[in-house]
Order: sequence, then C-alpha cells, then structure tokens
Amino acid sequence: MKCCFGVDIGGTTVKMGLFEESGAIIDKWEITTDTSDEGKAILPNIAASIEKKLGEHELDKEDILGIGAGVPAPVTADGVVNGSANLGWNYKEVKKELEELTGLRAEIGNDANVAALGEMWKGGGAGEKNMIMVTLGTGVGGGVIIDGKMLVGQNGAGGEIGHLCVNYEETDKCGCGNRGCLEQYASATGIVRLAKKKLGQDLRPTCLNKEDVTAKDVFDAVKEGDEIAKKIAAEFGTYLGHALANLAAVTDPAVFVIGGGVSKAGEVLISYIQKPYMERAFFANQNVRFTLATLGNDAGICGAAKLVIDKA
Amino acid sequence: MKCCFGVDIGGTTVKMGLFEESGAIIDKWEITTDTSDEGKAILPNIAASIEKKLGEHELDKEDILGIGAGVPAPVTADGVVNGSANLGWNYKEVKKELEELTGLRAEIGNDANVAALGEMWKGGGAGEKNMIMVTLGTGVGGGVIIDGKMLVGQNGAGGEIGHLCVNYEETDKCGCGNRGCLEQYASATGIVRLAKKKLGQDLRPTCLNKEDVTAKDVFDAVKEGDEIAKKIAAEFGTYLGHALANLAAVTDPAVFVIGGGVSKAGEVLISYIQKPYMERAFFANQNVRFTLATLGNDAGICGAAKLVIDKA
Repeated sequence: MKCCFGVDIGGTTVKMGLFEESGAIIDKWEITTDTSDEGKAILPNIAASIEKKLGEHELDKEDILGIGAGVPAPVTADGVVNGSANLGWNYKEVKKELEELTGLRAEIGNDANVAALGEMWKGGGAGEKNMIMVTLGTGVGGGVIIDGKMLVGQNGAGGEIGHLCVNYEETDKCGCGNRGCLEQYASATGIVRLAKKKLGQDLRPTCLNKEDVTAKDVFDAVKEGDEIAKKIAAEFGTYLGHALANLAAVTDPAVFVIGGGVSKAGEVLISYIQKPYMERAFFANQNVRFTLATLGNDAGICGAAKLVIDKA
Repeated sequence: MKCCFGVDIGGTTVKMGLFEESGAIIDKWEITTDTSDEGKAILPNIAASIEKKLGEHELDKEDILGIGAGVPAPVTADGVVNGSANLGWNYKEVKKELEELTGLRAEIGNDANVAALGEMWKGGGAGEKNMIMVTLGTGVGGGVIIDGKMLVGQNGAGGEIGHLCVNYEETDKCGCGNRGCLEQYASATGIVRLAKKKLGQDLRPTCLNKEDVTAKDVFDAVKEGDEIAKKIAAEFGTYLGHALANLAAVTDPAVFVIGGGVSKAGEVLISYIQKPYMERAFFANQNVRFTLATLGNDAGICGAAKLVIDKA
C-alpha cells in the first residue's frame, strides 16, 4: 500500500495529512504559513515538513505516490498560480517548484475545488461522480466535480459560483466589483446584510438584534420559530436555490453538498434551499439530492490527497 | 490510418459521414429517419447503411475504430436514452444495440453536446479545450466542453443552457414548464416574441412588420440601421450576454462558439452579446473569445466521429 500527502495551503496555516492510498489518514498536523517576503518560504517549509514526517514514519520516497496541494487562488491545469493575495504570491509555478523541492510528484488545485473533491471521496458526496460543493463561509466558494474530476477551466477559475449574478437590480457592490453576486446574499456576511435590511424594515417583534446580528443568530432564531428570522432565511434560500437550479441546468449533478461555517445550522438550511430549487429546476434535474458536508476542515487535505492518487 | 463513422440522428433525417482518424471526410450521405413503430427501425437502418458503405469503400471492420452517434435526447455516460420524443424512442440502450447490430464499437452522446465537440475539433473552437457552444435555433441548445470532453452529467442533461432562468419576473411559460428561460429570449422564436412585444409598444417608424416578423428580419433591419430592430437586438443580447457571464463563472471557457440558424446574422450578433457579457463577467472570465460556428450541419457528424476517436 502506497501513501501520499494532502496539503491545504491557507493564509494562516498549512494543514497537512499523510494518507494511505485507500483514504485512511495516518497522520495529520499543521504548520504556520509564512506570508512574509511574497510568501517565498511557504513551499520550502512544506517540503521540510514532509521530509521530517517521512523520517518519523520511516517511509522512503518510493513509498509515496506524491503530494496534492490546494491553494487559495485559481490554478491552471499545469499547476501554475498567477497570484494569490492570501499567500503573497505573484506568478508561481507551484507544481514545478514543489516537485523540485521534494523530489516527489505534485498535483495542485484551487482550494475550493480540492475541498469538493475531498467531499466526493470521503464526505457528503461519497459514492457520486457528479457533484457540486457550495461553501457558505465569509464568501461563497464552490467546486464542481464532473465524472469524478474537478472542473478547472481555462484559467483555473472554474466553479466560482459565488459570483453568479442572481439579482440584476442590486445597487450594492460585491467585493469582485460586480453587483448582485450570489455571495452578497448567501455568505455569512451576505446573510447579515439581508438581516440588517429586513430588521430595518420589518418592525414585528424578534429576538434578533440589528446591531450585532450574525448568520448563526438568524438560523438559531429560525429554530426558535422567529418569524422575522424565517423571512431572512427564506430570502437567502430563494437566491441560493434559484442559483443552484441554474447551475444544475449546466452541470447536471447527482448531489449538492453544502459546507462552510453557515452549514453548521444543519438540515434546516437545506429545507430553505431545496424548496426554491424545486420551483425552478429543469425537469431533468429534479432528482438531485441535497446534503451537508461532513469533513469540515479536513476536506482540503482529503481532496488534495485524492488529486494526486487520481493522477498516479 | 483507421477510419470511423459519425452519425447525427435527427427527427427527419440521419446524417452520416465516413471519416479518417485525422478528421478528413471521406464520404457524407443521409438516410430518412423512420420514426414509425416507436422508431424501432432507426438503428437497424443505420447499421445497414454502414454495411453498404463499407462495401462501397472496400473497407474491413478491422479498419474501423467505431461509430459515434448524436441523439436528440439526454444520453447517459453508458449510452442509454430514457426517451426521445423526436425519434419515438422510449428507454433504449443505444450503445449496446448499435454495437450488436454492427459488430463495431459505438459511442453515443446528446446531439447538442456532440455538435459542440465537432466545433471544438474542426470548427469555431478549433485549438481550444474549454469551450461553450450556444446553438440559437428554434430553441436554444448548448454544449459545454471541459478539458476536451463533453460535459455529460448525471442524467446526460449537461449543457441545457436554454433553460437557464434569466428573468424571474417573466409571466409567459417556456415549453419546459418554467418561466423566464433563456430560450424565451434568445431562440429564433424568442426573438420573434421580443419583436412582437416591442412592435406593439414602440410606435416609431420601422421596416419590421409585427404580423410576420422573423429573427432574420430583425437582424437584417439592424444592418439597415433600423432603431426599433436595434432595441430588439439589444434586449436579446442582454439576456444572452448576462446568461453567458454566469455560465463562464462556473465553467471558465476560452471561447464561446455561437451557432444555429440565428447565427447566420453574422458578426453583428456577437457585438450585441459581447457588450452585456463584459458588463457582468467575473474578472477571471473577461478574456474569453466569441466566435461564430463554422461547420453548419456537419457539426453533428464531425463531433460524433471525434467522440469515438477520443475513446478508441
């Protein structure tokens, strides 16, 4: 049985895992991301950490299939990044550099796409080959898996579902410069935005406090039966459900896997997404399942390991 | 050099081609589609036609890579159709039946997806591996090519871009039962619908006649400088351009190839699509090219041939 490394490079920490080819996690650890000096130490630090683990586990490089890594940036099919604000990188040939530093084969992907691959392998999408992962965090990220493979695209920017336009009448700007992006309604920040608007307009009694409302507060209040919170959740769900219906018409998935901090609200979240989805889904896409992500912070390292296993 | 057959099965005729592996067309012909009795003669007729051509060209089955075929229905990854209204078929194992009838390997795909593959191979998308074909005909069809392969999806319904919802306020119904589908604005029939509405509201002088206006009339009038026609074209282009911007955020293509009867209007069509696209495209998708399809009715047989060559 061969092994491989799965690496999830974030702006604060690099999460790392040593996997058996079967998917079993042998070891899991993290190192700090050193973003100083255009992040030039990040890959050498990863390489050093891998060398150390090989020693600890008495493994030879012949026992290792390679290293998979997820990066917070678009990554082209040949493992090149054209800049990552979170890591301080400009143009970087990540695959080539990591291979030269370690003497191991490396496969690189966008972190959201890689996390989707992880959820397909061992998480909410296990058993499926056509899957869409939607990550509802500070922003809205996503990954599209078609026939078991990540949809990478021409510039490595496939699966940017947070920037689907869902409201052409929106006047507020999204971080990307456009107006009406899904992220403005379905991210944690987007839900707060919807809540503040609603709380300013609808003066019925509610347990929500306009000044410091969070996405978690909204779904907690939904579970308590709060009518205003239900309206906010319904607005969130309508934008997201309609966007997913459009996504399905293009990609025809078997399952949507919902992850990210907002998904901690649990099954109630899915009920708010599924109803508007069904109102708008093309008939061929009405049997799609909705499920919650199950791997949490491990999705990235798992998907990175799968990436290198698939190409071995 | 081996050869293969490319077959495009339509509701009226079956177009067929004999190809060299390199892409050169050796022969091209068509037979009538016999849709009587649940279309049970369609595949046997194709098999007989192939046998005859093998004799005419003095080819042995060993010289043939296989048969590719496009079908007007969703086709699963294993070559099964769950019904095709145009052909009279119910559930049919098309790949299996065609292989048994001919003794040759067969690969089956949805006709719109297969046509997209053809345009990537030898047409408007030549040289690219990430491409979206948009077919503006009686309806709006499409095919998404990712990394050189058709996006098939779980039910064979990938690339149904005519049924992206682009207007949640629409009150008229689309043929699919939903409201606000792209097809209601960007197909030949959709353009006529927009034109009739506009001609009923805007009473400025125009060369267009509300009673018998066609999509071709609209673009002919645009070329003559007709102001009303320009407004109709702009409305068409806004719906289509915005829909393509959303498509690009998910699939990150290098090129959009515009085909179908409406595309005979030529380059002027692209100018009306590209401007609203650029207004809404995610920054990573702003370098995408727009081009016209070049293969016309041969796209289907070419793509079908490519389908079997790729899997050989």
